[in-house]
Amino acid sequence: MATVTVAAAPWKQLLLSALESNSHRKHSSYFQLATVGSSGRPSNRTVVFRGFADNTDNILINTDARTRKIEELKHCPFAEICWYFTDTWEQFRINGRVDVIDESNPDPVKIQQREKSWFASSVRSRMQYLGPNPGLPSLSDQPSPGFVLDPSSGPVASFCLLVLDPDQVDYLNLKSNQRMCFTSRQSANGSKCWNSERVNP
Amino acid sequence: MATVTVAAAPWKQLLLSALESNSHRKHSSYFQLATVGSSGRPSNRTVVFRGFADNTDNILINTDARTRKIEELKHCPFAEICWYFTDTWEQFRINGRVDVIDESNPDPVKIQQREKSWFASSVRSRMQYLGPNPGLPSLSDQPSPGFVLDPSSGPVASFCLLVLDPDQVDYLNLKSNQRMCFTSRQSANGSKCWNSERVNP
Repeated sequence: MATVTVAAAPWKQLLLSALESNSHRKHSSYFQLATVGSSGRPSNRTVVFRGFADNTDNILINTDARTRKIEELKHCPFAEICWYFTDTWEQFRINGRVDVIDESNPDPVKIQQREKSWFASSVRSRMQYLGPNPGLPSLSDQPSPGFVLDPSSGPVASFCLLVLDPDQVDYLNLKSNQRMCFTSRQSANGSKCWNSERVNP
Repeated sequence: MATVTVAAAPWKQLLLSALESNSHRKHSSYFQLATVGSSGRPSNRTVVFRGFADNTDNILINTDARTRKIEELKHCPFAEICWYFTDTWEQFRINGRVDVIDESNPDPVKIQQREKSWFASSVRSRMQYLGPNPGLPSLSDQPSPGFVLDPSSGPVASFCLLVLDPDQVDYLNLKSNQRMCFTSRQSANGSKCWNSERVNP
């Protein structure tokens, strides 16, 4: 069976359709992000899809700069998303390189992107970044003191934006029992091209 | 806050409760399994929980011996499960070593365990292992020919049992906003002991 090569990411429409079909489930915007720890062991956790970066196929994730995934991504910048849609029985495995954008990033465009993601999230979400260091021993059984956050103030130091640039996507539909592999490569002019191939489920 | 050390796996009861509370959702028995590829990149896919191995905390997963995760696990035997329960908002991250039990395994007890898992799965599930090589290009648009499988015959060559032996569990409850870390170590007599610690979410 011949493979097909196109410039637009052919998996993106499948993903947008899945998001649409499953949108009545709050958890349809959650997926699992796998990284590799400095020990060489895999790590895996649930994160929230924050949309695509403007006019790209790059996937946005907000995270706390104090979590272990940040040091893991500095050690190995690759990650694989596994996104299972519980109503339509579709799975997307999205592999790519992750750009970690924290407040020390020297690129003004990226700093702007981080700020945009901060304001796009709810004030309630932003409040999480004011809490104690995630993963460290909980020092008290008392609830955290009531933080006050000005809705107009920009990102706090612990707010970090992850941008995953996909280069391989494996799509599986368990209802139709069909599976597609999408692989990217650089074309002669430097832009990204996608190959699609139907594979056995 | 003092840590607590016990011999029985303290996270197992939490996991059994979550399974019970979410049992009306078919997808509550699905979780994401992260491994590390030979390239050093992470891999991540949805698999089905097949229960615990008899009288242990070891987690059983059935898989096709022809899938990429098998070569990945031979290269790096560690995996992390990320298991998110959509109704109760609980997440379990379970890290441990995976034992790959295929038909060539020299241990008769493990071969028996593999056979038991084969017969514990439905005939429909078993049929999958007769299909064409997963992940290879699909050679035909025709449906696969109707295979016949005698329900009394034992595991086929492509059937493989994975047994994950947890040594670290991270539990997060998004409703109560509580997080616990469970870490195991070998006690003086060689048995496994678990430390529990409450950490910041």
